[in-house]
Amino acid sequence: MLRICVDMDEVMADTLAEYLRRYNQTFDEEVTPQDLAGKGLWEIAPLDRQQQLRSFLDAEDFFEDLDLMPGSQDVLRQLSSRFEIFIATQAMAVPNSLGSKYRWLQRHFPFIPPSHYVFCGDKSILRADYLIDDQPKNILRFEGQGLLYSAPHNLSATGFLRVNNWEEVAQYFTAVQA
Amino acid sequence: MLRICVDMDEVMADTLAEYLRRYNQTFDEEVTPQDLAGKGLWEIAPLDRQQQLRSFLDAEDFFEDLDLMPGSQDVLRQLSSRFEIFIATQAMAVPNSLGSKYRWLQRHFPFIPPSHYVFCGDKSILRADYLIDDQPKNILRFEGQGLLYSAPHNLSATGFLRVNNWEEVAQYFTAVQA
Repeated sequence: MLRICVDMDEVMADTLAEYLRRYNQTFDEEVTPQDLAGKGLWEIAPLDRQQQLRSFLDAEDFFEDLDLMPGSQDVLRQLSSRFEIFIATQAMAVPNSLGSKYRWLQRHFPFIPPSHYVFCGDKSILRADYLIDDQPKNILRFEGQGLLYSAPHNLSATGFLRVNNWEEVAQYFTAVQA
Repeated sequence: MLRICVDMDEVMADTLAEYLRRYNQTFDEEVTPQDLAGKGLWEIAPLDRQQQLRSFLDAEDFFEDLDLMPGSQDVLRQLSSRFEIFIATQAMAVPNSLGSKYRWLQRHFPFIPPSHYVFCGDKSILRADYLIDDQPKNILRFEGQGLLYSAPHNLSATGFLRVNNWEEVAQYFTAVQA
């Protein structure tokens, strides 16, 4: 059975929405995902807000209630009958997220067993056929076929096989002989 | 650079010592590692203690202060100049251990960056050249060269390349062209 690794933030979970919610609330701003085309929030935020930006991620509850990316549940449930699905998230940069990420996965993706969660840093460690990820650097390090999941910050990245939403993920794997 | 994955429990950390300490204290017993040759503690414990056995592992502080396996720090520090070292621990079966395992690694192995921690379940996900692990089933699932680190429970396992202590790990890798 072919194996697909799936990133969490910005792929399964709408991390950016929560990030912007906290940013806008704290600084009385109205930054939208559209304002971030080709950039991360930390690139448009003033220098004196960088520390606060980081502290949003470190908050114990940040990763607890993230919204689902539309279609992620349905498509992964379908794919899990034909492929081996592993979740691979760069959790080590935000150790406070470990517990909440575990709980979030159990709540929203009960059909994926915890033995298939991988909390890691450097994604070159993954032995899998496919990786769906929003970070170009993760895909470059991965040895299998990468699929760059579109997010505002990666819109100008070129040279990647790109999927814009979960419908396109489903389409891509329909053509793959599992 | 060749890559070595290293398991934590019973390889870097003396998990069994803590497990026996709690067991003996709770049940007023004097079970030693020698009593466990070829067996896990759950195999010699009566049925009505199984739930308690499991709850030892789930305690928030169980993995916080485990003793080091003798030589693990020195040998890994040496190896880290010639090999890429990743820590790969089956943390997903005990989600309460995630935070304490992270802290333990930072405290005792500061020369290994958190980006090289892998908290996982099924170790077939690891892309590496070597895996040092005390669980035969992990080594069987791993695609590279496995080294079975001797522990009481695995003493009767055959057909594995076996290392009995960290000195033997160092010896083995001396002969490997990194």
